[in-house]
This record gives sequence, C-alpha cells and structure tokens, in this order.
Amino acid sequence: MAKAITSRAEDYSQWYNDIVKKASLAEHSAVRGCMVIKPHGYGIWEMMKAQLDSMFKETGHVNAAFPLLIPKSFLSKEADHVEGFAKECAVVTHHRLMKDPDGKGVVVDPKAKLEEELIIRPTSETIIWNTYRDWIKSYRDLPLLINQWANVMRWEMRTRLFLRTSEFFWQEGHTAHSTAKEAIEETLLILDIYAKFAEEYMAMPVMKGVKTANERFAGAEDTYTIEGLMQDGKALQAGTSHFLGQNFAKAFNVKFSNADNKEEYVWATSWGVSTRLIGGMIMTHSDDDGLIIPPKLAPNPVVIIPIPKPNDQIDVVAQELIAKLKSLGIRAQYDRDPKKRPGFKFAEHELRGIPVRVGIGMRDLDKGQIEIARRDTKEKSYIPVGGAPQYIQELLDAIQSNLFEKAKKYRDEHITSADDFTTFKEVLESNGGFVSAHWDGTTETEKKIKELTKASIRCIPLNNPQEEGQCVLTGNPSKERVLFAKAY
Amino acid sequence: MAKAITSRAEDYSQWYNDIVKKASLAEHSAVRGCMVIKPHGYGIWEMMKAQLDSMFKETGHVNAAFPLLIPKSFLSKEADHVEGFAKECAVVTHHRLMKDPDGKGVVVDPKAKLEEELIIRPTSETIIWNTYRDWIKSYRDLPLLINQWANVMRWEMRTRLFLRTSEFFWQEGHTAHSTAKEAIEETLLILDIYAKFAEEYMAMPVMKGVKTANERFAGAEDTYTIEGLMQDGKALQAGTSHFLGQNFAKAFNVKFSNADNKEEYVWATSWGVSTRLIGGMIMTHSDDDGLIIPPKLAPNPVVIIPIPKPNDQIDVVAQELIAKLKSLGIRAQYDRDPKKRPGFKFAEHELRGIPVRVGIGMRDLDKGQIEIARRDTKEKSYIPVGGAPQYIQELLDAIQSNLFEKAKKYRDEHITSADDFTTFKEVLESNGGFVSAHWDGTTETEKKIKELTKASIRCIPLNNPQEEGQCVLTGNPSKERVLFAKAY
Repeated sequence: MAKAITSRAEDYSQWYNDIVKKASLAEHSAVRGCMVIKPHGYGIWEMMKAQLDSMFKETGHVNAAFPLLIPKSFLSKEADHVEGFAKECAVVTHHRLMKDPDGKGVVVDPKAKLEEELIIRPTSETIIWNTYRDWIKSYRDLPLLINQWANVMRWEMRTRLFLRTSEFFWQEGHTAHSTAKEAIEETLLILDIYAKFAEEYMAMPVMKGVKTANERFAGAEDTYTIEGLMQDGKALQAGTSHFLGQNFAKAFNVKFSNADNKEEYVWATSWGVSTRLIGGMIMTHSDDDGLIIPPKLAPNPVVIIPIPKPNDQIDVVAQELIAKLKSLGIRAQYDRDPKKRPGFKFAEHELRGIPVRVGIGMRDLDKGQIEIARRDTKEKSYIPVGGAPQYIQELLDAIQSNLFEKAKKYRDEHITSADDFTTFKEVLESNGGFVSAHWDGTTETEKKIKELTKASIRCIPLNNPQEEGQCVLTGNPSKERVLFAKAY
Repeated sequence: MAKAITSRAEDYSQWYNDIVKKASLAEHSAVRGCMVIKPHGYGIWEMMKAQLDSMFKETGHVNAAFPLLIPKSFLSKEADHVEGFAKECAVVTHHRLMKDPDGKGVVVDPKAKLEEELIIRPTSETIIWNTYRDWIKSYRDLPLLINQWANVMRWEMRTRLFLRTSEFFWQEGHTAHSTAKEAIEETLLILDIYAKFAEEYMAMPVMKGVKTANERFAGAEDTYTIEGLMQDGKALQAGTSHFLGQNFAKAFNVKFSNADNKEEYVWATSWGVSTRLIGGMIMTHSDDDGLIIPPKLAPNPVVIIPIPKPNDQIDVVAQELIAKLKSLGIRAQYDRDPKKRPGFKFAEHELRGIPVRVGIGMRDLDKGQIEIARRDTKEKSYIPVGGAPQYIQELLDAIQSNLFEKAKKYRDEHITSADDFTTFKEVLESNGGFVSAHWDGTTETEKKIKELTKASIRCIPLNNPQEEGQCVLTGNPSKERVLFAKAY
C-alpha cells in the first residue's frame, strides 16, 4: 500500500503531515491556505460539533447565522480589535466579473467596485454587536445566548492543516448580559464546557487558565483558555472564552434599560473552538502506525472485517453483531468489499484510527469465537460470538479511559517547575512541556522570554496557588507561578 | 404588542415580509443582500438539515468541506458554467488592510493585491472537480458520493429574505460515477429524496419534473426539479438535481481507468436545496395570524403556558407533561415567564407558528383537564391530564397531515389545462397556479411566452403522458403538455 508514515522520533512534523494525508483527513486546496476536509476528517468534526452543540443547548444557548462579510469600517470601531484583526484578511472589492474584452477568460468588471470594501469575517464580534443594537432594548431582552457554526478566514502566511489554515471552521458564541458578574459566569461556564469536552470526549487533558494581557483576544478584558499538551512537548491552545466587558457595546452603542429604567451598556462574552481541535486530537493520541480516534469521536467506532473474504455465514454473524451493537447505541461498519484482502483492510483501518476491529473468520467461527482488536494497545482477544456486543461496549469505554489516562500521565510528567533561567531553558530543550515558573507580571519580560526561548505564557492556571517568588528572568518579585511552553 | 401582520388578501408580499420579521425568523443585515437568520428561523433550518442529512447518509452519502474561495480562472473552464455564474459575484482582490496613512480608519493595502482574484463560491462544481482529479484514478474509487453543507454567495440585485439573498445556506451534493446510467439514477434518487422531504416533512406537495434547456443549470445535461405552489398561485423551485454528464470531468480532466483498464471521463451529478425552503414553508402554510410550522420541522412543537401564571401545582403538571412527551420523542417548552401574561404568550407563540399550545390553569386542573389548542385550525379541546401526551402525539400527526392535505388540495385546484393562448393568459391572471399546456419545444417560444405573461416553464413532469397537441402560442405540433407558472 505504500502507506507507511514517518515516525514521531524521526520527524514529528512530518509524522503529523503524513497522518493527516494518509488517514485521509484533509489536504491543501488549490486556494492558498484553504483546506479540503475529506469525508473521514469531516466525520470526526461532525461528531465534535454534535457533542458541543448539545452541551451548548443544554445550557440554554441557541444557534443563529450572521453574514460572512463585514463592512471594513466595522473593524475600526473597537480600538484593540482593529489592531488584532484588521491585518491579513480577505478583502472583497468588486461584485462582478465580465468577459475579458481582450481574451477568452473573465476579468473583474472595473465598474463593479464596491463603495466600501467588505472583509470575509476573521471573527464576528463587530457584525454581531452591530446587529444586537436592534435586538436589545431592555433588561427583559437579556441575556442573549447565541452561537453560530461558521467558516472564518484569516490570511495566514504559514499554514498547517487543521492547526492553522486561512479558512477554518468553528463555532463562535456571542452572549449579551445585564451585569459584569453574569457575563463572567458565562465565560467560565463555557470554559468548563470546553474542558469537559476536551477531557471526556477528546480524551485530551487540558489546563484551564487565564491569558496574560499580551496573549488576550483583541478587544477582551480577559481571555480564558484550555491548553493541551502534544506528544512533542508543545502546548496547543484548544479553546478560548472571552469576557469582553462593555467594549463592543460601547463601540457599537448597545445599551439597555435596566430594572430601574436607567440606560447601561451591555456586557459581553465571546468564545470559540475550531477545526484545530482535530489537530489536537491527532497529536494527543496517534502513534507511528497512524491515527487513533477516541471512541466517543469516531463516526464508526467499530469495523468488522470478514476473513479472508465474506460468505453467507460470516455475513449473517456480521449483520447480527451490527444489529446488537446498534441496540447498545454503538455504530459499526462492515467492510465487506471482496476485492480487498484482510491485510489491506487491517492496515487501512489502523491507519484511519478506528478504535475496535472485529475479524470474523471461519476457523474462529468453528470455535464459536471472533477476533476483537483494539487500536490503542493493539491487543487482540478471541471472544465468544454471543458475548461480543457486551465486550465491545466495555472495550470502547476502556479505550476511551486508557487514551485519557495515557495522555494525562504524559502531560503530568511534562509539567516541570523551574526557579532559575538556566533550568528553565534546559527543561524546555530536554523534557519540553509546561514549565511552571515565576514571572514578574510585565509584558516586557514575557516578550523577552519568548524571544530567548520561544516559550510563551500559556496561562495563569485557575485557582492558582499564591506563593512568594522571584521572576525566572528578572528576579523581580512574583506572587504566583505561570505556565510557560512552546506552543502551536 | 403591535404585532398584527398585513393580510394576504391585502398585500401578499408584505404579508410574507411581516411574517419573516414578526415571527423573528430573519432580517436584513448591514451588508447588502446578506441576511441574519435569527434563532427561531435557524432552529427550523437545523431541523431541515438534520432530516435531509440523515436521508443522504442512509443512501450512502458522506459530508466533506471544500474551500469558500474559487480561483477566477476555474470559473472559465466549463463553457456554459462561466456564462451562468461568472457574473454577479463577490470578488476578493486583496489580502491585507493597513492603517489609513491619512486618517483614523483602515484601508486596503495596495501592496497586498492577489496575483489571481478569488471568487466567493456561487456553487462549487469547479473547485470540487478540480479536487476530484486527484481522488479518482480507477473505477474502484467510484462512486464518490459527497455532500457539503455550506454558505454560498451570488450578488443578487433584488433580494427577499430566504427566497433570494446574496449569501445563502445550502447543501450541495457532488457525486462521481463510472457510467452515465449510474449518474442518472443518482440524480433521480436525490430528486425522490427532495420530494419525500418536501411532502412528508415540509408538508409541501411538489411536482417532480425536468427543466427545459433554457432553465437548466449552467453546465448540466439535465436539471430535475421539485416545484411547490405558494398561496398566491406562484410556483417555487424548491430543489434541483443535475445530471452533469462528463462536462466537468472534461473541463477539469478527471478520468478513471475502467474495469478493462481503459481511460474514460467520469460522470457527474450535483444537487442542492437551500434556506429558500424556509420561504417555501412559510408561503405554503402560514395564515394572516402568522407562521405555521409543520410539526416535523418545529424545534419545539409544543409550548406549555401557565394560566394566568405559574404556581407549584401548575409547574408539576407541566414538568410531568414535558417528561411524558419526551418519552414519546416529542420536545416541548414551558413558557413559564411570570412577567408576561397568557394573552401575550398566546399571541407570541401563534405568531411564531408553534403547532400545539397547551394551557394549564387552576380552574381546568380542578376538573382534571388541560386546554390543548392546535395552531393550524385554532381548535381548542379540553383533555384529561393523563390522556394529554397521547392526545398531543396524535394531534401533531393530524396537524402534519392536515397541512399537507390542505396544501395539496390548493395545489390540485390550481393546475389548469389551457389549449389556447387567451385561456392561458386568463388562467394566469385569475386562478394563477400551474397551467398545463402544449409547447412547441423551442426556447424561442418559451421566452416569448415568458415575455408576454411572466410565466415560465416550471418543468416537464416525470412520466408525462404523451398526447398530440398544438403549442399554445405558435400552434406548432407538440407531443406533451408542460407546466407553466409565474414563479419566485
């Protein structure tokens, strides 16, 4: 099959690219920086979306859709936001093509120039808060708890599939509240949902924390984050939840009358996770043989393969197993294709990360058993046909737990305290991972450390223990440790 | 509340706009031609998506995501396609903004001009077939049965919410096959899915047929359509399924080796339905009091209202009812808000089209009953508390059927045969609806009739009876009747 992938030890970056390509998750498109998400990758995204969407809805959020395009002037209305987002972006300047008068193709019709350029949304705070102005009049209209699933575009110079692409897919929640307290609670509620999703569904342990001023979302008062740790010791920002204060309400003049009939600016949050999560999932679990999908995110967590090829008896056993698994809420596919040999199929589904593989062969059936293999540890067992559904159900739970525990062990082994800058640098170069160190609280020091080591402050952990200490770079006094890491 | 809406008799067009606005379905945005779909409207779209998506998946289709942007040159590669789509579209010419050197805002950075302009996809055949070239090598790679849920953009000059907007949301299926026969079967399979969805879920009867050459999708060999009939006697094209022949395969050089190891061009289909369906749903069922949502498309088909306000006993009855309905697979919401009076809530939920309203009041509870009202006929019944879940379940089915039967009766009463042009015009002006008439088969006549009457040929019905006749305009010989109508 020529599907061998580069090992992590040899070249981690190439290993990642190989998995994305050879597990048929995504590829680059003809348009610079924009990806094609292939069916296998998109199936995982659909699982992520469905789970997150239900968690948002259970907590009272509803979905809506706002325009793809944003008038250029909107970006300038919030001072910090414009600094952050009015840079590399796709600008629509014309609305018509015409036949090339000198040739065969089409050209932009110079008469169809827009009065004001439109930007493909890099994020939607501006257009949404411009809309909320008409929706919010009174405290009775609050809170507004709205999310949208959307594509956004940031003109990235260096792209990597899932991790950083010009167009990407995400959800962006935009909520409006009558008090700062309620908005902050919302910000933290969402952070908890993100952390729960990462840990219980993606099996990816995360650190919850708040960003430094330097790493904040452009326009936020506070940015909360969940940070995962990849197998190469680099951190991945996996989701962020922003308390926006009254910044966008002021920029777009969104006021409400409170219960005392006084006008106030509305309080806001925004929050998002994106297709980047797929990159996080890949780098948390996969091995040198390919992708490993946590069972809860696998569109089909079980694949059944006839050995060496299908016949009536195997078909019946397979169909009965599929039906029984379905009654347990487990989706299974039967890879019946008689043109391909079992060895090819085994390799293919291993590469594609299917959590459980069931082999049904006549020799085993004569003994009343089938072969069940788990993707994570590659252990194989021979299980009586009648006990297989129950066994598979438990095995899927075991795989889900094992992936999380393994990732958590790795993560916990890669949080290292450093009290001087030599140690700090040594840890980053050898063990990698998070370095827990004192920092003097200035952006200047933060930037200097990043310049010297490529490590940024990933977050100040929530409920961070307070302790007297000295900044690892400057020796200036510090009251708490923060988490540094090199990051994607 | 000042929520009264214009009656259909008074001004049908304004009635439609009023419903869209006052039932909080959608509104125009700050960006010309682009809509905001509000949570209530988006909830209906989510119901449509979920149902269609499951129908696509049951028939072997998978989802994927292709880029938002298309290189300008791609549009020129298929001769008919460029005529149809390289016109009014959003053109991205630059990829960066910069601070206005003369002012406070931001301007387009002239140095960031793209080498080749990019078009926001008006439809994705070109970028997808450019991608398929690498995916398809052999007959073993076929069929490819791929769909995407996406936003697309056509720079419309005159827009109407849901019916015609610059940005809209849709699904677009793009399949690849090894034979023409298989591709045509796919085209018709999808047409059947669309018709089934329209009739069984939207309760909107449709005519299935094929478009004339003049009304074909740009680049198709044949376009199949489902056509609904709105309450003003105008037709609505609700979904189309295209047999694309080998046109896009040839334009993008997509070949496969067949079983005899010979190279052939791949056969293609594409098909789509969009947020326009929401417009069709509104205009098929709603009345002068507001929206009517078919139960199968209502995110919450039942609303429960305490009369006159909630108390412990009412809360208990409401929660028990919600739980029992849930066990029957029926979602219900409890509009408990003590700040609003029942009359306000009744009017609000009527306007928003909730199929079943349950009133729980102390006086009724003393008699062991609750009040259940249906939105379509406005009939009210008093039902024993214990029997309510079962009653509601049956009532929802009855409403779904009633809406379909009523719409079908209207539609059937609005198909009129016309054998001369005077009758043809009279029918269009008086009764409206579909006019079944002979046509000589030329585009010239078709265009002339449209010019004279505004009626276009909606379709040549599938399995159309063959009969000798004379064209209603020219008197030239004709072998079958076709369906004319004024249309959205």
